[in-house]
Amino acid sequence: MMRWLVLALLALAAPATASPRDWVNAHRADILREYLPLLAIPNVASNRADIRRNAEQIVAMMARRGLAPQLLESADGQAPPLIYGEWPVPGATRTLILYAHYDGQPVTPADWTVTPPFVPRLFAAPGRPIDPPADAAAISDEMRIFARSASDDKAGVMAILAAVDALRAEGAHPAFNLKIVFEGEEEQGSPHLAPLLRRHRDLLRSDGWIIIDGPAHQSGPPQLALGVRGDVNVELTVYGPVRPLHSGHYGNWAPNPAMMLARLLASMKDETGRVTIAGFYDDVVPLTVAERRAIAAIPRPDEMLRRELGLGWTEGGGAPLNELIMQPSLNINGLRSADVGERSRNVIPTIATAALDLRLVLGNDPERQVQRVVQHIRRQGYEVLDRAPTMDERRRFARIATVTHAPGYPAERTPLDHPLAQAMAAALRRNGPFVLMPGLGGSLPLHVIHAELGAPSVSLGLWNYDNNQHAEDENVRIGNLMDGIVAIAAVLQADQPPDRR
Amino acid sequence: MMRWLVLALLALAAPATASPRDWVNAHRADILREYLPLLAIPNVASNRADIRRNAEQIVAMMARRGLAPQLLESADGQAPPLIYGEWPVPGATRTLILYAHYDGQPVTPADWTVTPPFVPRLFAAPGRPIDPPADAAAISDEMRIFARSASDDKAGVMAILAAVDALRAEGAHPAFNLKIVFEGEEEQGSPHLAPLLRRHRDLLRSDGWIIIDGPAHQSGPPQLALGVRGDVNVELTVYGPVRPLHSGHYGNWAPNPAMMLARLLASMKDETGRVTIAGFYDDVVPLTVAERRAIAAIPRPDEMLRRELGLGWTEGGGAPLNELIMQPSLNINGLRSADVGERSRNVIPTIATAALDLRLVLGNDPERQVQRVVQHIRRQGYEVLDRAPTMDERRRFARIATVTHAPGYPAERTPLDHPLAQAMAAALRRNGPFVLMPGLGGSLPLHVIHAELGAPSVSLGLWNYDNNQHAEDENVRIGNLMDGIVAIAAVLQADQPPDRR
Repeated sequence: MMRWLVLALLALAAPATASPRDWVNAHRADILREYLPLLAIPNVASNRADIRRNAEQIVAMMARRGLAPQLLESADGQAPPLIYGEWPVPGATRTLILYAHYDGQPVTPADWTVTPPFVPRLFAAPGRPIDPPADAAAISDEMRIFARSASDDKAGVMAILAAVDALRAEGAHPAFNLKIVFEGEEEQGSPHLAPLLRRHRDLLRSDGWIIIDGPAHQSGPPQLALGVRGDVNVELTVYGPVRPLHSGHYGNWAPNPAMMLARLLASMKDETGRVTIAGFYDDVVPLTVAERRAIAAIPRPDEMLRRELGLGWTEGGGAPLNELIMQPSLNINGLRSADVGERSRNVIPTIATAALDLRLVLGNDPERQVQRVVQHIRRQGYEVLDRAPTMDERRRFARIATVTHAPGYPAERTPLDHPLAQAMAAALRRNGPFVLMPGLGGSLPLHVIHAELGAPSVSLGLWNYDNNQHAEDENVRIGNLMDGIVAIAAVLQADQPPDRR
Repeated sequence: MMRWLVLALLALAAPATASPRDWVNAHRADILREYLPLLAIPNVASNRADIRRNAEQIVAMMARRGLAPQLLESADGQAPPLIYGEWPVPGATRTLILYAHYDGQPVTPADWTVTPPFVPRLFAAPGRPIDPPADAAAISDEMRIFARSASDDKAGVMAILAAVDALRAEGAHPAFNLKIVFEGEEEQGSPHLAPLLRRHRDLLRSDGWIIIDGPAHQSGPPQLALGVRGDVNVELTVYGPVRPLHSGHYGNWAPNPAMMLARLLASMKDETGRVTIAGFYDDVVPLTVAERRAIAAIPRPDEMLRRELGLGWTEGGGAPLNELIMQPSLNINGLRSADVGERSRNVIPTIATAALDLRLVLGNDPERQVQRVVQHIRRQGYEVLDRAPTMDERRRFARIATVTHAPGYPAERTPLDHPLAQAMAAALRRNGPFVLMPGLGGSLPLHVIHAELGAPSVSLGLWNYDNNQHAEDENVRIGNLMDGIVAIAAVLQADQPPDRR
């Protein structure tokens, strides 16, 4: 704890003239001028060439700022690299890492209604795209930039670099040795993060990670989250005839895989949304009394969200959102069997597929949770395979399901009384209102950081909650982007927790 | 019945040298040379310009044969026209209409694996495309043409015209006044057929229609079907949040429309495939004793099909296909909610949609059957609309379903002892083996013909049963195409039923 005290004293020694807010407001146009070209580079991590182009651009942005950027490569040089930079502070005894990720979720361009996903555009209001004004004062808080990763999570990359600018402009420096890590494969489940951290562990020594990713609280202010749910993606396919059949000549004789899938999915949850898979909630580590108290203190956005989202009911029998996200979940991300609408034909489809994601909380192991789903499917009479069935298997088994899954990762939570948590809370408290969340509903690979480097982590959610992240028409509100830069600047000057002074 | 006797005598007076089989075998290359360009014209009926191009091509093909073609237009000239032609036979007292349709099912080009849907190709064997040989003897029965409508139903158009050629070449003529009608909107549910028939009823007077459409029996021979199921397409959409939500931050709080749809669909059928919607089977007119006997006499392809299609079970608790297609059905044609596979994202989707088709048998009314489905959805707690919900409705009702449906049409059946049925059976019996089906599983707008013109109808299924009709990789086997021409030539010389001589 002594080292935190030194850090605090160093922070107090920083120039008192620093006003990141003024700097940000004066430089809105400059920030957009740098940000929009970054958003124009496609960043779905499965396209390695695109990812390299993003990395090169970000390295150039960091080099301009004297952050000594370098790419941390995987052993075979094939994985999307970590982008590393640093701002060593003479005399600082603590080191913190600010993290964001530069890859984005896959896109379905046909679904984007206001601009294609990699043609970033500024909108003055819904339906009113404008060229970015050259005058900072003309860029108002309510404007939005639409593009894939506009908020998730190139906003994190841009805001960290702009916060560095804001400090530099005022002659200030971070209250600790600053390291920066930008990941390029987070939206794919961070499959190479563990080996990358292991390979570069000396460079990545720190006293903690601050993750800049995710939305502000629905009630408005930034949210400091001390944990995240884990996540594992599962894909489930069931089989009908090997070729599509005429639905008149063969219905209802040939089994319909879409109906089989519907029955199978319906068996997994009850009417209230509670998962009915045996053992699904068994491993959950109960919340501490302090965590329960913190959750109870969080504003409840439920009624506002129900109105805004047009929801006539919610799952969980009316339990509040803040409590429900502390439980494991089973969600259908997508369904597909043949076609609907204009392209629909009178067929019995050959297959039906559901994409699922299982969110995990403390105590859940990804593999064990997936196996519970597999066991459930078996109990519904299915032969479960991890590949497509052979013709012989199709003839032999009445019901076959192919279940595949990504490795996934477990949840992570830093205790409320941890010094890192306390220091960040104090820094944000000085900056303005914020919400303290013991755990986020979303997922970040924080468990990997803990397991590989022994480092604790917290995450800071800054972007508008209605940003359509992971979906079409993703966007960031200018006010959130600018406030986010200011909040990160405050974090860079984090004090030690007040109760340990 | 006297007029049928006259017809029979006229048929006996035709030249005895007619051998359509020899003509067809000698002209295989010529037939393909004319057929492949017709298949190259896209024919999804919603594209009116494409449909006109098809009509023009077919008119030219009929004009070459002296069939006096003309387009029978709708009142506003906007609907796909009927193509009409005729071969009046001096002295003939009966008139029969041969029908086929020149439009095809919608296509999803990405799903076609061997050739794009409108780039027709001849395959010598799976995976072995060849240029059509110039030598008729080099075109073997086992070759196949792949293209949309290769069998459904431009094969009907081509085979009728080639059968006319075969008769002409031998100096023969039909045993009746021949009229030909090619419809251009059958795969869209024939929405303009009734007004077109009404508008041109004088030209379309006849003693019966012979529909050339659909597959041969799975056991090999042509099938003469005396009836068809009716059909009505229903689309069902359920709603989640108005914008896609991050599945971590909002799962499981926000209702998931994919799960709601799964539960709703699962409620519609039991594990054996029996429809559990109240009243679904109530209106069914029971089969006659003669029909039951005829069905029992049909070869049972069940075991062969199960092997070929890779099915470990079938619906209907093991009842045979031939019996099950005499019952109404509820089939899922397609499912869609957000995305699966590469494009899947960690979202809670906004909507989930199922395309359904209801097959109808004698006694079922399309609207009444749809209303049973609607009532069932209401009983599951849904507010049912025929349009997308307003924001206010989304907030007010926990569960909303949008149900839309095409008009559809009822089933039709010509009795086993009807003179038209008997005459066709006799003609086919002379041609070789065939299967007599009291009713087909598939649908044709025969009810409209009966209602508008008072004409009975039968249908003749000729194409390979494994033709992927309505799906990707649709094809026709050359042997079926050539045998089909010969069978139609036999029908053109149809005798009167033997038991009435």
